[in-house]
Amino acid sequence: MENSMIIKQIAVIHTDFREKFGIPRQSGRVPTLTGEIEFLPEYRKSEALRGLEGFSHLWLIFDFSKAHREQWSPTVRPPRLGGNQRIGVFASRSPFRPNPLGLSCVKLVEIRHTADRGDVLVVSGADLLDGTPIYDIKPYLPFADSHPEALGGYADAQQSHRLQVEVPPELLECLPEDKRQTMIDCLAEDPRPSYQNDSERVYSMQYAGFDVHFRVVQECVQVIGVEKL
Amino acid sequence: MENSMIIKQIAVIHTDFREKFGIPRQSGRVPTLTGEIEFLPEYRKSEALRGLEGFSHLWLIFDFSKAHREQWSPTVRPPRLGGNQRIGVFASRSPFRPNPLGLSCVKLVEIRHTADRGDVLVVSGADLLDGTPIYDIKPYLPFADSHPEALGGYADAQQSHRLQVEVPPELLECLPEDKRQTMIDCLAEDPRPSYQNDSERVYSMQYAGFDVHFRVVQECVQVIGVEKL
Repeated sequence: MENSMIIKQIAVIHTDFREKFGIPRQSGRVPTLTGEIEFLPEYRKSEALRGLEGFSHLWLIFDFSKAHREQWSPTVRPPRLGGNQRIGVFASRSPFRPNPLGLSCVKLVEIRHTADRGDVLVVSGADLLDGTPIYDIKPYLPFADSHPEALGGYADAQQSHRLQVEVPPELLECLPEDKRQTMIDCLAEDPRPSYQNDSERVYSMQYAGFDVHFRVVQECVQVIGVEKL
Repeated sequence: MENSMIIKQIAVIHTDFREKFGIPRQSGRVPTLTGEIEFLPEYRKSEALRGLEGFSHLWLIFDFSKAHREQWSPTVRPPRLGGNQRIGVFASRSPFRPNPLGLSCVKLVEIRHTADRGDVLVVSGADLLDGTPIYDIKPYLPFADSHPEALGGYADAQQSHRLQVEVPPELLECLPEDKRQTMIDCLAEDPRPSYQNDSERVYSMQYAGFDVHFRVVQECVQVIGVEKL
């Protein structure tokens, strides 16, 4: 087909999120969120990673696999703007775009050699759904990619929005120790769609094999149940 | 096809480089290099850019259109390492990768309204070939994308390599005034493949409709001819 290209999945990422709800809205927001990138057999070659250990951060180009649509819409409603303001799709990182390609920067924690899955990349700060297909992995080059002075448009004002989180100790203990703080950090990011402001409403976030039920009263997340899935 | 996705071109970039030779090896290296992004008719909608004016930098995901290959190679030889050291393809930004997708950060200079081509994005710092197909444009989010502390691996040591440039005034005047300094800056980046060190050899860089002939004697580029193409 003219004006098009076929791209092939090279890897898959495994994360603690089986559902979109609860995933932080940009990479790096919750630094302790880890993921494991496993290469597909065809791309599972140690040489392809030679030199990667010298980099601290990576770019992932991935498939917004739950956001494929037949038609594209020129505007989207970013949740961080309350969901009622329309922004151009090219002025947003929304998954609903002409080509559902995602771009995230993650930290490279470890290159883990495994017997059955080859070299696995352990990364942190990942805002990806479990099972997301990866199309490319590139090193982050600070001299070309880092622009702290850049203007972040409407997104700048929204980045500091965070909620308090209250979890009764007995519910926190339902989770494995290494998942507790990360769950709290994800909730603090305010997973609610569009700043819904109904303090009676119970939300459920699936995380690390658990269903976490919570309410949001004023600016505080109150966890009211944790169930194993 | 399983494990694959078809992506469609949404735009094309027009730049002063018709050939790969001479293009700076990362975006932003030559900040004055400008380009114009023109949307394909189907994607030419002003609403799709709403809010973009608040961002200073953009990501382009593009087609390394001259680097399509049937087979992929797990290693590449980065020109900046002298061309004789092999690095894993996922530890490099080489165009020769399983999916020939490029990623560049450019500055948004202007959104230019035109009668015949819709809204055109004027960008600077572009390291793209003229006519490169663009698959996605995303805003640069400094809070998620900027990591000045990141480690740049083997690439860190190489970024400061620059050459002196000598151009006789009568040759410089062959070029339009607004292209002169940019040509010098591109030459200073050392376009030679693999640090060739033959001071007799004459290289030619096509830039802005001119053929620029030069030699490199020690660490100095000597321009010896400028011809209109």
